[in-house]
Amino acid sequence: MARVLTPRAEDFPRWYQDLIAKAQLADNGPVRGTMVIRPVGYAIWERMQADMDARIKEAGVQNAYFPLFIPESYLRREADHVEGFSPELAVVTHAGGKELAEPLVVRPTSETVIGEFMAKWVDSYRDLPLLLNQWANVVRWELRPRTFLRTTEFLWQEGHTAHATEADAREHARDVHKNVYQAFMEELLAVPVVPGRKTKGERFAGATNTMTVEAMMGDTKALQMGTSHELGQNFAKAFDITYSSAAGSVEHAWTTSWGTSTRMMGGLIMVHGDDNGLRLPPRLAPIQVQVMVVKAGEGVTEAAAKLRDELKAAGVRVKLDDRADVPFGRRAVDAELQGVPIRVEVGPRDLAAGNVTVARRIDGSKSPIPIGDIVGAVTSALKADQQRLFDDALAFREERTVDVKTLGDAIEAAQTGWARVPWSAVGDAGEKEANGKAVTVRCLTRADGGMPDSDEEPNLIAYLARSY
Amino acid sequence: MARVLTPRAEDFPRWYQDLIAKAQLADNGPVRGTMVIRPVGYAIWERMQADMDARIKEAGVQNAYFPLFIPESYLRREADHVEGFSPELAVVTHAGGKELAEPLVVRPTSETVIGEFMAKWVDSYRDLPLLLNQWANVVRWELRPRTFLRTTEFLWQEGHTAHATEADAREHARDVHKNVYQAFMEELLAVPVVPGRKTKGERFAGATNTMTVEAMMGDTKALQMGTSHELGQNFAKAFDITYSSAAGSVEHAWTTSWGTSTRMMGGLIMVHGDDNGLRLPPRLAPIQVQVMVVKAGEGVTEAAAKLRDELKAAGVRVKLDDRADVPFGRRAVDAELQGVPIRVEVGPRDLAAGNVTVARRIDGSKSPIPIGDIVGAVTSALKADQQRLFDDALAFREERTVDVKTLGDAIEAAQTGWARVPWSAVGDAGEKEANGKAVTVRCLTRADGGMPDSDEEPNLIAYLARSY
Repeated sequence: MARVLTPRAEDFPRWYQDLIAKAQLADNGPVRGTMVIRPVGYAIWERMQADMDARIKEAGVQNAYFPLFIPESYLRREADHVEGFSPELAVVTHAGGKELAEPLVVRPTSETVIGEFMAKWVDSYRDLPLLLNQWANVVRWELRPRTFLRTTEFLWQEGHTAHATEADAREHARDVHKNVYQAFMEELLAVPVVPGRKTKGERFAGATNTMTVEAMMGDTKALQMGTSHELGQNFAKAFDITYSSAAGSVEHAWTTSWGTSTRMMGGLIMVHGDDNGLRLPPRLAPIQVQVMVVKAGEGVTEAAAKLRDELKAAGVRVKLDDRADVPFGRRAVDAELQGVPIRVEVGPRDLAAGNVTVARRIDGSKSPIPIGDIVGAVTSALKADQQRLFDDALAFREERTVDVKTLGDAIEAAQTGWARVPWSAVGDAGEKEANGKAVTVRCLTRADGGMPDSDEEPNLIAYLARSY
Repeated sequence: MARVLTPRAEDFPRWYQDLIAKAQLADNGPVRGTMVIRPVGYAIWERMQADMDARIKEAGVQNAYFPLFIPESYLRREADHVEGFSPELAVVTHAGGKELAEPLVVRPTSETVIGEFMAKWVDSYRDLPLLLNQWANVVRWELRPRTFLRTTEFLWQEGHTAHATEADAREHARDVHKNVYQAFMEELLAVPVVPGRKTKGERFAGATNTMTVEAMMGDTKALQMGTSHELGQNFAKAFDITYSSAAGSVEHAWTTSWGTSTRMMGGLIMVHGDDNGLRLPPRLAPIQVQVMVVKAGEGVTEAAAKLRDELKAAGVRVKLDDRADVPFGRRAVDAELQGVPIRVEVGPRDLAAGNVTVARRIDGSKSPIPIGDIVGAVTSALKADQQRLFDDALAFREERTVDVKTLGDAIEAAQTGWARVPWSAVGDAGEKEANGKAVTVRCLTRADGGMPDSDEEPNLIAYLARSY
């Protein structure tokens, strides 16, 4: 077969950009670092959104919408926050033909403006917890942009919650992290993740604790797929989010925030993509099955349309491709590039024998199936292939994750995979040393994989890797 | 009952703002003219989005996402467009800690940036029509902001399409206007609209034709609920959107654009709201039925939970309100304010007699219903009340729309309703005169209500009204 993309093994970053362009997922925008998400890519993002949104609502969180423009003074109220975000801000200085009295920041994240309104809406302990989420665009000026992974503007959801106690805030953040984020990534995206705690140096600006879910990409680098933050009382104090307790005293609330973004699109590509293009997990795929007319005539189009109807009736997301004027080979290559999990190819010869060909993108198999068995064959293949993608990604990660005892060994192992090393063998100084060699501490976990309450706990494990 | 809102008849604009605040639909944002859409309001907007989005997809249009920031130079390429939008632009001049070489405009609409990419993606007539839509936030600096109706930032969908011929572009724009917009507003929002053509003076900046759907608000003013534009070859020429025809010649495409926004939330409130709050059309309502525990004990909570389950199983969007510690009267007032179509009130006395009370928000009725009949009673009431809201709004508009023969009579009639007058009795000069008296030509239609091909057609009817 002709080479469609730069092979992954030859040049992974170029393979990634090739795939995005050839599969028509996205284009670079006119302003450096911005992107256009094309219909093929956006359809995937819409399915991510719908599934994530249902999980967020299931967790008792309500959606709302807060303004894009934030007065510059708001950001200054939380010292760590403004220090962390200042270098990345885009600023509106003129509007309506005039210079503004106070410049407006285009939101890089919304803790500040949402904090302002939480303060307004919360009076009593009865108003807590207040659980909000918004789907929005945010802007962070990027010096080294890369499509989906790091763009000046990106789409995301940001959850923001306020609680009466630290324990309640912590429990909520952990619940979302595990039951929304980790479950979403593993069940829908078929991407296995390691949940853990960030070190102080990697924390969100203004947080007291940042939790992450980390995934291994096809080049063994790590990608942070989502984060959940405990914000302590930092924002509650900066924005005066107080409530009267049952006992009548006035207390500051405890807040959290958590976010996932179009960056997950990049992770999806780099975990599941191969030299022929994207491979979409069936549960995520906007089109699960493409029924293709190989060649028109001899009842082929009619048989293909009938199969489409049967699959649709069985709840499969199916598309009929009867563009007989476009060469079949080109259509098949495009379907592979875009990651359609199953192609059902209907041609005159097979059809005469009562068969059609089922081509599975995920395991690469291609076999004739009696036309009457298609619905059963397709639905069980979709289920098996969802699991297979996950299993393969997990096996890939496990094969490339090694347990070591020293910082030196960890940095070395991180050149070709992930290293698990006792956090006591790294520490703040070791983290700095690793960073100097382009290796970062991705997260800390307990020895049993559990989430630490603090980075001071004994016997913690650190994951070290190169990363995006 | 205690007065909850300023009565509509006393001060309509104040009633509107009161309702938005008391029903917790939205708040003013920190930057003048911006708004925060609160969970109660956002849940309504989400349902609008979902329904509109399905209709847009049904029309063959694909979603995509284009950048928020547009190079200032893009806007200048289409002369009318830049002239129309310049006074309303917000401009980013600094980003990443530096002054930008070229200022960036925060999109007021996306014809320009989408035109740039259409030019890139369209090669041949086979690539046409190209039918795109995006859900996004846009910014237009407003001097006289009003929540939902005119805000500096608002949420909307903007469709952008490119076609090989003027006829195809026109047919598409009309199809969306009638089968997406008008159908959505009448079927989902229960808001009757008059579709028509805007005069030259009221056209979108850069369009060759703007079509509108106009609705009469509760104070008899008109609100433009959505618009669809034929853009001729204006943007195709400015952005060089060309295609090679079947005959091999290179041609400019014909483009359209069409949009609806959170402004529809304002229309919904002003069409259906009354002195007790919002009245939501059942098909739109996020919560169709609130099952309320009037007083706990004697099996009331259990009976209410069972009713909730039965209604849910019947496909009704239902919420159980068992907050027995909050006075029943307050909960009922809140449900009325937020427009919940039906309350099923479960109290010990009724329950002992085998009944519950069904309170219908739309016709104000309240009656005891045997508990075994609830599912049937509720589902038929939801259906009837959807129709009733539409019928009432249509009757209201028809009673307040008069046919007159002269401009003077039209301007007079427009003080208390809408005037239908021959366009020949108005003309450009008459339009200017009317505008001087705060009356505008909302749209032109044919005598039979049909959509004119041009404002030069004979026997056109003009609708004159005061407007938002």
